[in-house]
Amino acid sequence: MESKEEEPNVSCGRPVCLHNPHLDALKDDILYHFSLGTGTHNLPAMFGDVKFVCVGGSPWRMKSFIEYIAAEVSLQDPNSDYPNICAGTDRYAMYKVGPVLSVSHGMGVPSIAIMLHELIKLLHHARCTDVTIMRIGTSGGIGVEPGTVVVTKQALNDMLLPKFEQVILGQTVERSTDLDQSLAQELLQCGNELKQFPTVVGNTMCTMDFYEGQARLDGAFCYYTEADKQAYLNKVRDAGVCNIEMEATVFAAMCKLSGIRAAVVCVTLLDRLKGDQLTSSHEVLVGFQEHPQILVGHFIKKQLKAKAADLSPLINIRGAMRRKESHAKL
Amino acid sequence: MESKEEEPNVSCGRPVCLHNPHLDALKDDILYHFSLGTGTHNLPAMFGDVKFVCVGGSPWRMKSFIEYIAAEVSLQDPNSDYPNICAGTDRYAMYKVGPVLSVSHGMGVPSIAIMLHELIKLLHHARCTDVTIMRIGTSGGIGVEPGTVVVTKQALNDMLLPKFEQVILGQTVERSTDLDQSLAQELLQCGNELKQFPTVVGNTMCTMDFYEGQARLDGAFCYYTEADKQAYLNKVRDAGVCNIEMEATVFAAMCKLSGIRAAVVCVTLLDRLKGDQLTSSHEVLVGFQEHPQILVGHFIKKQLKAKAADLSPLINIRGAMRRKESHAKL
Repeated sequence: MESKEEEPNVSCGRPVCLHNPHLDALKDDILYHFSLGTGTHNLPAMFGDVKFVCVGGSPWRMKSFIEYIAAEVSLQDPNSDYPNICAGTDRYAMYKVGPVLSVSHGMGVPSIAIMLHELIKLLHHARCTDVTIMRIGTSGGIGVEPGTVVVTKQALNDMLLPKFEQVILGQTVERSTDLDQSLAQELLQCGNELKQFPTVVGNTMCTMDFYEGQARLDGAFCYYTEADKQAYLNKVRDAGVCNIEMEATVFAAMCKLSGIRAAVVCVTLLDRLKGDQLTSSHEVLVGFQEHPQILVGHFIKKQLKAKAADLSPLINIRGAMRRKESHAKL
Repeated sequence: MESKEEEPNVSCGRPVCLHNPHLDALKDDILYHFSLGTGTHNLPAMFGDVKFVCVGGSPWRMKSFIEYIAAEVSLQDPNSDYPNICAGTDRYAMYKVGPVLSVSHGMGVPSIAIMLHELIKLLHHARCTDVTIMRIGTSGGIGVEPGTVVVTKQALNDMLLPKFEQVILGQTVERSTDLDQSLAQELLQCGNELKQFPTVVGNTMCTMDFYEGQARLDGAFCYYTEADKQAYLNKVRDAGVCNIEMEATVFAAMCKLSGIRAAVVCVTLLDRLKGDQLTSSHEVLVGFQEHPQILVGHFIKKQLKAKAADLSPLINIRGAMRRKESHAKL
């Protein structure tokens, strides 16, 4: 009863759902690609307080994000070092400060899927609740100014359908790619408050290839004409797509299955209606990549403030109850 | 004429083919995910002598491979440092010693596909000829002893079909996953000569997911029974599959399209007919991961020796011709 009172969100909050009865039979669960495991690490102690998970392709970017968020929400001494929690492997990198976890996922659907399987198990084993997970990434824009942040409304596959197809035991299984619409609106609101860069809510197309799969003319192979490309990208734009990237469908599908509130927040590095190659200067591109970090940082700061305000009356009540109990014991 | 005589293989050898007429119109070609480009780097000077490209998922492993190969073929001072040629990005890592290039590709089909588009363009821009490319990776075995090296005969997709499906402009295009059978046999022969670990030639299944896609029971989600899993893996074994990994189909398809001799050489870390989790000790797993490196190192050493023997009469002829020309000029 006491632990319930002390950690009301741990016991009452929304859990991270696994759908796998076989895991109960495992003595230890080895999260191989994180170099972590239930037999070797105390996951509840290491991760039990996590409320926000931010994921992105590049390990460097995810390290810079944790440094940014630590400074932004004043969670820790700004001179702190943030060691890579997955230092035993080079598959993924993971950093943590307070309730914020930052994890890299590499490029493409299979790479992020391996990471998400192990992340979802990690959050479950750590008994985390009320987790929000946001992908902060880069993308090619469709008809939006480079540097625009697109918060995904609906994740579409490369056939422009709102589903993720997964082959399981030789059979194709379809999964929904619905994302949390209220979270998307909250993130849009953050963009409007910040006024530092354009922020829009729109559909995101997720492809399995960067070159031919995104109708680029500059891959090693290209068997279509520039007119074919333009006709296809116009069709993509007409489906409400504001950006193209390579992870959104499986990210949406897996977060939905596990009951985690999720959003995809990507900056556009170029307008694909106008070209294929990333010709902007290194400095400009680095600046663009900070936009999703700034937006999500603002969101996390607001959430933590709101939570602190929500909890303060409860803390007062609990304090009063404890005082009452102490008196009763005397 | 003189440069032709000095580099007979450069002008007469098998080139790396691009199938993209649009590239001619590009002023500079930016290989974005390598942080290299034709406008910023002298690719023929940097890479023109490359004859062997080895690729693998992990950047650490590809660095250790270049150190191993340098020592093995005595190409360079063993105390040399091998800087990451792609130090400007954290998407991929690249190392070179003499005619051997070592490149990481991350995990899964989309990740290796981005790398291969840019690698094939790099080799073409550098005017490389007679290139052999080998993927040295890890995999789950089917009915073979852990530590066995499987040289891929045929790369099969997750429907057990020998093809790679790619969506281009919203249409599914099928590509052949044929690999060079004579190269596979040469690699098997190397394994037989070495006698350090079992080496077999067999089919390789390539999946888009590590957990549900490979019938594991230990992902975040699993909606099938252990009996379903076993029935499926038996079907996979009956299709001649000796191992399961996540890159072989697109690797085979792209190398075939570009006319590059290619092989997939993966060690099996466990027998999937007996389990799912990688429970072997860290030391044992590290030792297994050296098997493809040792096999491919032996192959490269043999090839370089054979080439040196082939070239020696030509060098003598050329020397005689030069002496003759010198006399004529006197």
